[in-house]
Parts: sequence; structure tokens; C-alpha cells
Amino acid sequence: MSSNTSLDTAAATTFDVVALCQQARIASRQLAQMGEAEKNQLLLAMADALVAATPQILQQNQLDMQNAVANQLAEAMQDRLLLTSERIQSLAAAVRQIASLPDPVGQIRQLAPRPNGIQVGKMRIPLGVIAMIYEARPNVTADAGALCLKSGNAVILRGGREALNSSLAIAKVLQQVLVAHQVNPAAISVLPVPDRDVLLQLLQQEQYVDLVIPRGGEGLIRFVSDNSRIPVIQHYKGICHLFVDKAADFDKALALLLNGKTQRPGVCNALETLLVHADIADTFLPLAGAALQAKNVEIYSCERSLQHLPTAQAAAADQFDTEYLRLAMSVKVVDSFAAAVAHIEQHSSGHTEVICTQDISRAQRFIKQINSAVVMVNASSRFSDGGELGLGAEIGISTSKLHAYGPMGLESLTTEKYIVIGDGQVRA
Amino acid sequence: MSSNTSLDTAAATTFDVVALCQQARIASRQLAQMGEAEKNQLLLAMADALVAATPQILQQNQLDMQNAVANQLAEAMQDRLLLTSERIQSLAAAVRQIASLPDPVGQIRQLAPRPNGIQVGKMRIPLGVIAMIYEARPNVTADAGALCLKSGNAVILRGGREALNSSLAIAKVLQQVLVAHQVNPAAISVLPVPDRDVLLQLLQQEQYVDLVIPRGGEGLIRFVSDNSRIPVIQHYKGICHLFVDKAADFDKALALLLNGKTQRPGVCNALETLLVHADIADTFLPLAGAALQAKNVEIYSCERSLQHLPTAQAAAADQFDTEYLRLAMSVKVVDSFAAAVAHIEQHSSGHTEVICTQDISRAQRFIKQINSAVVMVNASSRFSDGGELGLGAEIGISTSKLHAYGPMGLESLTTEKYIVIGDGQVRA
Repeated sequence: MSSNTSLDTAAATTFDVVALCQQARIASRQLAQMGEAEKNQLLLAMADALVAATPQILQQNQLDMQNAVANQLAEAMQDRLLLTSERIQSLAAAVRQIASLPDPVGQIRQLAPRPNGIQVGKMRIPLGVIAMIYEARPNVTADAGALCLKSGNAVILRGGREALNSSLAIAKVLQQVLVAHQVNPAAISVLPVPDRDVLLQLLQQEQYVDLVIPRGGEGLIRFVSDNSRIPVIQHYKGICHLFVDKAADFDKALALLLNGKTQRPGVCNALETLLVHADIADTFLPLAGAALQAKNVEIYSCERSLQHLPTAQAAAADQFDTEYLRLAMSVKVVDSFAAAVAHIEQHSSGHTEVICTQDISRAQRFIKQINSAVVMVNASSRFSDGGELGLGAEIGISTSKLHAYGPMGLESLTTEKYIVIGDGQVRA
Repeated sequence: MSSNTSLDTAAATTFDVVALCQQARIASRQLAQMGEAEKNQLLLAMADALVAATPQILQQNQLDMQNAVANQLAEAMQDRLLLTSERIQSLAAAVRQIASLPDPVGQIRQLAPRPNGIQVGKMRIPLGVIAMIYEARPNVTADAGALCLKSGNAVILRGGREALNSSLAIAKVLQQVLVAHQVNPAAISVLPVPDRDVLLQLLQQEQYVDLVIPRGGEGLIRFVSDNSRIPVIQHYKGICHLFVDKAADFDKALALLLNGKTQRPGVCNALETLLVHADIADTFLPLAGAALQAKNVEIYSCERSLQHLPTAQAAAADQFDTEYLRLAMSVKVVDSFAAAVAHIEQHSSGHTEVICTQDISRAQRFIKQINSAVVMVNASSRFSDGGELGLGAEIGISTSKLHAYGPMGLESLTTEKYIVIGDGQVRA
């Protein structure tokens, strides 16, 4: 985010955030009334249009890449920023996939009569206007646009400034499809001024915007939460635990450990902490240590684990609150099931926790006692995302319990109203 | 709320809000693990204990009543404040009723296998710690305490200062039952210092409190929303509309009109605005006007209605945004179904809207197009509360779409976590 405040302020005064939000609100009314077939038709047309516009999108992406090189952006960030024909193809495929998902809007549940004969039920409806705040990932522009459209919401996209040209190019394609189908193009808009002051203004538009979803690093999410008058989906970090119980199958435990830690260490559902029941510490820890070492995982361990882990370093005081996001891991021996639960309660980020055990009673207790967003028995923490859990696609993840908890799919972009069908009944 | 800031600050420094919230958080872990039978046993014991403690509660209530008289509190407020043996009986009956409701905690839905064999489902869990901010109504202390307990949440109750002695007396009874059953008494606590600074401190405890539910006037709710770092359930006002369509049955329309406006005009689900389709204005409006006049309802009407309503006054510019909360009503003729929807969209508070029509297509369109929290066909707006809609009991009502929308029962005090049961699966 820019620290050049005087420039930001100048830009902010020339761009009318309120008008953008008002237009989105108006568009949201049209979207809320659209049927599933109509929305799918739009999405499929958008997928085709994205592929057809490949040259124009790549041209704008080139501008972003040139700036990225000039500004010496980190290579990993440059890679996320880069679009290719193949990446635009998979972006279009993701939009088609969203078209294929069932539409939650209009679903009615629990319609049942009350004693006086009125029928009461709940009907799922869109939230209205979503603001999506993310980093320099042009693919999120298409993805989030499609998810919001499918769920009947208007969306205001505010991506990282490094990807602005690419995002605007993608949004232009989506808007052209909207206009061609007589849909208000404000249904999907990109904030064209990526300055902090404009973002701050956006976060004040509680009258027009129903929900803010920030996606990115902890700093971004905290900035958005601290400055928003609109409800914010919060997801600070993922400190995921694997508890290897005394009744664990060691082969499964080692597979879950390696997959959770090493398959993709830089993401939030990777493991950060291994807890081992004291009864099996002397047999399991040497196996775990060797397996982790073979994958070049640094180990920071509690005093009791150290004797079983020749390559480990002693864990510092804050080690068990660390999200490494790399090939490193904390290890601790716990005296009991209760001690494992207590450790997780104290250090968990509320994301995902796993128990490895063959004991059904202890598995049930873990599921009951741990209230993180995703609680697993004998499965890899890496399954903790929308696609793997069957949501089809994911708009974000929430680790706070309000409105949504865990990976968020289409249903998380909706709410339920009550519907009442009577025949003239009045209250006595 | 007190404006004596220096006194408030002094009180705030001597009372440790953070410790209270921490204790509530600890108690919430115990509550989350309690089964339905155990919670019901507690609730039934609490109901008995409240009745048994009638003399002590009435004694403390007398102190509040003496202060109320000394401070010349309005009679309506004095009436809400007053407890009697009968009122304590019905308070206990409400607690027993909550014991009889099904416990949402632990319910599992959509448990289904993914292609790789892991089973994925959602399990309902308590939110954690609820802060309830309300006015001088001692009955809310027992009611909210019981609802939070049944849903497995700890609750911090902060009622109006006028009812503080009564609330503390009631909470003491509930806490004695908790202690007698080896449950942490911090599960239900009353903030003993009713000062604004202490409330402000409470609203900053996002680390320990999961949700704030304010119940009361618009000023209280706005103060809480503006000053809270914790998510707040919002419900500002109820401007409920009755649209009498051209296809309406006039007998039903008149019954809904009178019941909605006059059965209890001071509550949020009472009607404030009558919209009448132009095609029936000259036949229906004289009947409506006479019926309202017979019940002494003041009428503020649009220019076109005036000719049909001899007793009406011309509506001022802001009349259609007014929540009267008394025997007064706005009336407007609309040219079409679409005009009725547009008027509601512009002036609705998102609470409850009613259409009176015999035309099934127009009824369906109204249900689809109006996205207030409760949308009704041929039923009185007065049914828009938790009890009437079948929730059993109500902790509040939300007119913002996040987390909960409409009357909130036990389920609104919970969220869902994902549960995953595997047999050693890892991600490819």
C-alpha cells in the first residue's frame, strides 16, 4: 500500500467512491432477481469472452509486469502477477466451473405450518454488495466476480495496485458481457484508483456495501478490519495442529505429517505444529524426525522432544504461535489427550486441527472438544479448502465465527429471510 | 446512560472488565461441552430457584422502584421495571419453555463422502461469549441468560442502570444454581457497574467476546455499533409496510391493517405505512380510513389519498421514513405493483413487509422481490417475532443480513464448523 499520502489524497478527491457503491447497490437489485439459467448463461459467455480477449488482457498484463520488474517485485509476486494464454484458459475454466455449481438463491427450507395455519419458512437470498480486497492476483478478479454473480451479489473488486492494469482488463471483458445481456455493468466493478485513501472511503460505505472480504496477508486483513464500518470476514493466519494420539496408526500419522507440512508449506492450511502423545514419544518421534529431515524441514521442539530429535533446535517461547509458511515446524510432547486439547485451545488460530488416532472414542472427543473452523480425524490439513471440502469454489475463509466459519463458498455469500404465507390470519 | 464522565471513569478504573470477560471465556469452554440433558436440568433448577427466591428478588426490585420514583422515571418505564410474584412466575415459565426447546448444538448436517473417501459435514457449535446490552427490563436478564446457556454460550449481561439491583438479584439466583451443579458461575454474569466507560471497555474485548446483541432504542443500538470492535447484531427500527394489492380481499386487508397497526402500536413489528394500489384506491381507502378512525389512528397521507380520507392530514416529506410507535400511520397510493416494491425498497427498514392479495403470481413476485427479514402474504406483520414464527423464544432481531436476519432464536446463537473424517487420506 502506498505511503505517499499527499498523492493518495489528491487521487481520492477526484474519484467518487460513493457513486461507485451506489451504482453497485442499484445493480445488486437486478442481480437478486435473476434466475439460475440466466446467471449461468452470463458466466459461460464471460468464460468465452475472457479467452477471446486473451491478446488484450496479456497486453495490459505486460504493463503490470514491466512495472513489477522496474519496481523489483519479488519473484514469487511476479509469478502470481503473470498471465499467459494457458492461465487465461484456466481462469475461464474456473468461471465455467462456477456456472456448474448449484445456485443457493431462492432455496426454501423448513416451510411448515404454525398452529394458526400460517406457513413459515426461510428463503435464501443474496447479501447485496460485496467488497473484495485482495493482493496482486489478477485471477481473483475473475474468480470473485463470477462467485458473486452466481450468488446474485454485486461486487466491488479492489486488488493490489501491481495488478491494476490486468484487473481492469479482465473486468472490462466481464462488463462487456453484462452490457450485451442488458445487465447493469456496475454488477462487477474494479476500483480504478488503488490508493489507501480510496480504500478507506470504500470501507466507510456501510449504507451501500454489505460485506467486506479481505484476502491476503495478516497486515492487509488487520488494516481492513481496523478501518471498516462494514462487517469484515476475518482470517488472520493458519496455525494448524496435528495431534498424533497414543492410539495412532504410525503410517497414517507420518503420511499426514509429511503431506500437511511439505506438500505446499506456504499456504494457510499447511501444518505448523506437531503434538505427540507422551506414551508414544520415544517410538514415534524418531520416525517423524527422520521423515521431516529427509524433506529438509527445520524442527523447533520442546525440551522433552529434543532427546528424540537429533536435528531439532530448542523451541523459543513464541514458537508455538508461529506460522512458518515454509519448511519448518514446531514439535511438542503432551502428557495426555486433555493436554493436547489445552495446547490447541491456547495456540490455535481457529483454522484447522487434525487428530491421528485409531480410537473411535478419542476421535469423537476431539471432534466435540475442538472448535476450530475445520476439525479432522485421520485426514490431511491440506484438505481444508473450499474445493477439497466440496464447495466447488472458494471466495475466502473465515476464522471468526460470525456469519461464516471455515472455507466460504456460494452459500456464504447469501443469507436467509423468513417467508410467511397466510390466508388473512391476525394476532390475537 | 450517565453523562457524568468523571464519575464513570473513576468507576471504570476500579472494575476489571477484562477479568470478567476472561472468566466468561473460560466458562464458555465448559458450556460448549455440556450435553442437552445437563443444560435442561440446570434450566429447570433455575426456574425453581427464581420462584423460591421471589422475596429476595422483590426486595431488590423495590430498591430499583424507589429510585425510579425518586428520579421520576416515565410510567411506562416504571411498569417494565416492576416485578411482582406473578411476573417472577412467568419469568420462570419462560426459562422452563427454553429448557423444552431442541438444542441446536452438536447437530450435524450434510455429512457426505468426497471422491477420495473423506467424509465432510458441518456441526453446529456455540459462538462462545455473548454480550447482551439492554434497557431497564429485568426479565431480559433471566431470558437472555437462559437462551445463552441452552445454546452453550457464556453471557455477559449489561442492562439499564435503573434495573441494576433487580438484575443482580436475578443473576445471583442463576449463579447459585450453576455453582450447585459444578458449573463455572461466570457462565452468566451481570456487569455490576452500569457506566458508559465500562460499557465502552466491554465493547473493546474482541479477544474474549464473540458477539454483541443490543436490545432497545435506536440510540442505544447506534451507540453500541459505533463503539464496538466486536460484531454487533443491528436492528435500528421497524418501518413495516402493508401493500393492499388490486387483487386483495378487502375483509382480509382491513383485518391485517387494524391488527398490524392497533393491536400493539408501540412495537417494531407494528405497521407504519399502508400502500394501496391505485385501481382500488377509491373503494378501499374510504373503508380503511373509517376503520382506522374508529380506532383513533391518526393518518398522514399522500396527496392522492387525501380525497378518500376525510380525517387525514397531508404527509410531510419525511413521513414515509417515520416509525410512529403509536396510533398513527402513513398512507400512500401507488400506481402499480412495481411502484409498491420501489417504495418499500426506498423506505423499508428491512424488518417486515406484507402484501394482501388473492393473486398467486403477484404473491410470489412480492416474496421474490422484497428482501426484508420477514416477507408475508396475507398475514399480520405482528406475527414477525420469534415466538410466532416458531423459534420458541427470541434473543433479538437482526435487520442486517450478516450472521442472522430476522428474529433470532437459539440457532442464531450458534455457528457451524466443518468436520472431516478420513482414514489416512492425504492431498495429491
